[in-house]
Amino acid sequence: MSVTTPHGFRAAGVTAGLKPSGKPDLALVVNDGPSHNAAAVYTGNRCKANPVLWSEQVSADGIVHAVVLNSGGANCYTGQAGFQTTHRTAEAVAEELGISASDVVVCSTGLIGAPLPEDKLLPGVATAAGRLSADGGDDAAGAIITTDTHAKTVELAGEGYSVGGMAKGAGMLAPGLATMLVVLTTDADVDAATLDGALRTACAQTFDRLDTDGCMSTNDTVVLMASGASGITPDAADLTALVTEACAQLTAQLHTDAEGAHHDIAITTRGAATETDAVTASRAVARSNLFKAAVFGNDPNWGRVLAAIGTTDAAFTPAEVDVAVNDVWVCKAGTPHADPATVDLTPRAVSVTIDLHAGSSDATIWTSDLTHDYVEENSAYST
Amino acid sequence: MSVTTPHGFRAAGVTAGLKPSGKPDLALVVNDGPSHNAAAVYTGNRCKANPVLWSEQVSADGIVHAVVLNSGGANCYTGQAGFQTTHRTAEAVAEELGISASDVVVCSTGLIGAPLPEDKLLPGVATAAGRLSADGGDDAAGAIITTDTHAKTVELAGEGYSVGGMAKGAGMLAPGLATMLVVLTTDADVDAATLDGALRTACAQTFDRLDTDGCMSTNDTVVLMASGASGITPDAADLTALVTEACAQLTAQLHTDAEGAHHDIAITTRGAATETDAVTASRAVARSNLFKAAVFGNDPNWGRVLAAIGTTDAAFTPAEVDVAVNDVWVCKAGTPHADPATVDLTPRAVSVTIDLHAGSSDATIWTSDLTHDYVEENSAYST
Repeated sequence: MSVTTPHGFRAAGVTAGLKPSGKPDLALVVNDGPSHNAAAVYTGNRCKANPVLWSEQVSADGIVHAVVLNSGGANCYTGQAGFQTTHRTAEAVAEELGISASDVVVCSTGLIGAPLPEDKLLPGVATAAGRLSADGGDDAAGAIITTDTHAKTVELAGEGYSVGGMAKGAGMLAPGLATMLVVLTTDADVDAATLDGALRTACAQTFDRLDTDGCMSTNDTVVLMASGASGITPDAADLTALVTEACAQLTAQLHTDAEGAHHDIAITTRGAATETDAVTASRAVARSNLFKAAVFGNDPNWGRVLAAIGTTDAAFTPAEVDVAVNDVWVCKAGTPHADPATVDLTPRAVSVTIDLHAGSSDATIWTSDLTHDYVEENSAYST
Repeated sequence: MSVTTPHGFRAAGVTAGLKPSGKPDLALVVNDGPSHNAAAVYTGNRCKANPVLWSEQVSADGIVHAVVLNSGGANCYTGQAGFQTTHRTAEAVAEELGISASDVVVCSTGLIGAPLPEDKLLPGVATAAGRLSADGGDDAAGAIITTDTHAKTVELAGEGYSVGGMAKGAGMLAPGLATMLVVLTTDADVDAATLDGALRTACAQTFDRLDTDGCMSTNDTVVLMASGASGITPDAADLTALVTEACAQLTAQLHTDAEGAHHDIAITTRGAATETDAVTASRAVARSNLFKAAVFGNDPNWGRVLAAIGTTDAAFTPAEVDVAVNDVWVCKAGTPHADPATVDLTPRAVSVTIDLHAGSSDATIWTSDLTHDYVEENSAYST
């Protein structure tokens, strides 16, 4: 049920005709209240898509009544005409629902630089509005996927309230945020500032640590809407924990469905002077094409791990670093230790552990191996 | 003739047995003077290989008598024992030549984390010393290659003096420096400070702008030795220009021989506020796996160019940026312009031009496409 698991929400997923495949490509999620508090986080990319430019304004006041999402086109670098398309999409939603366009977040995903056809998009909005349902969450989740092999959803129960969510994202997954659209809902009764704090904390620990290919999207959006329909106002810490868990489950689903991946790699740096250092070191490894290609070849090439962390400013002494692959310590104190031949890299899940011996902080970055399938999918995406 | 084109140098390339293939794997280049001034630049990676740790000390006084280079093993992350191997290699050279070990630069290339077998390396040094010849430059150039498909050499004539050089490098090519070993020689009579200035200027414009896969090596070394045998002391600007041209020619050879590349891509950013901004923007595109995979698929996916530069802090306004692929302006002022279908990406050479409209500086970064062959070569390298 994803976003319609919490009370107070209706959703729909329909085919507007934006995807040549004819698969569902337009989703609508509506908060029927009584509360309409919301928070949102957007891509850190400076080249923002038109829907992001629009939605940043919409969510700035902490009030969101509806989110409309389309796959089949990113509406990014489509100029002023593209911004007007986003604006008209929000107005179409507003008209159907009797709300203000300035309370409608718009999300788009797909190819950059191609205009979205309004003659398909706007009728699609009307169709979606007509099909809104309190059990439409799964339809909505299915309509936003692109190269994803399956829809990503989550439902979690709190004390008298719940959190639901849906996500799409398979490529261009890098932080600030990973490339994805996420809608989270809750029927808790929470003010916008508390939602914002919960969402930012959750994203920093989850989506921001997924880095499958180092490429940051122009369209990333994560929205959290609270209907207040449960009448329950949870403790901020409880809400943050539940939202973080929801984001963690969606992150894991995004991770294991990353384009072309044969291995799901978790890179943990521990013994770091700061959490930032741990993230930096792990991320450098996550972005090493040489290391990622080695994992694809089931080769525990720890030299490439060290070469990667050596490019960072994290605090460590090269001669003190330990590295384990799938819990086999192949490098201790900067020298070869266990025989790399004893590392079994045939399972899909791979762990890399780096101990910097420089402090007590740790962090994990999730990435994928670099495979023929990744190259194939991404060389053929727009052609 | 590469490094032995200038007068005053002898070189040799022999098989020490470090490579399982039995191909030449040890090179020796000796400066017979009368001058022994030298300059060197090393990897910016903090995890430096033992030969780099050694050679930084050797070249610090601006005097180098000989350079010994091996392929078949990087001698990196091999601990104190590995440093002793480097030290004993320098001592073996010194003993053969009747010079001081503290004037012998040592370079190694190959797999990280595997010890170099001294029982092969040290006899190899003796063999190489016995074969030193004033026309041994090509043998030396052939002995340092790894996954290179051919040796890289350069010979340039100045006014009464010359510059010669050899390089190896095919993967892990990223700046500060690209992954490579380079020995440059000149028979000009030049002090060490002038050599240092010339070499740093040359590297910044050439090797440092080659970024085939974003991975920085632990072993990169560029050494420039001056014998003074011509008796000519060129103007510093003339020398800098000739050394820069030699480095540019070697960079081009490294670029077009990059592992698995099907396209040689030159990414030029112009209209930048500063040269640093131009380098930063071009480098971000060079590191976008999504863009590099698109080029492999002959897809002029300019949206991925914009998504990449949007992650940088270069000065520009997203709505003002132009992008051309192979001189077709597919994006003007942040909106679609020429039809991408008119871009012919079948030739091996590809140019990407980004105009930031933020100033008058420009810079080019050279990279490669992301191909099945790259994945294959790098997933099978150590196994």
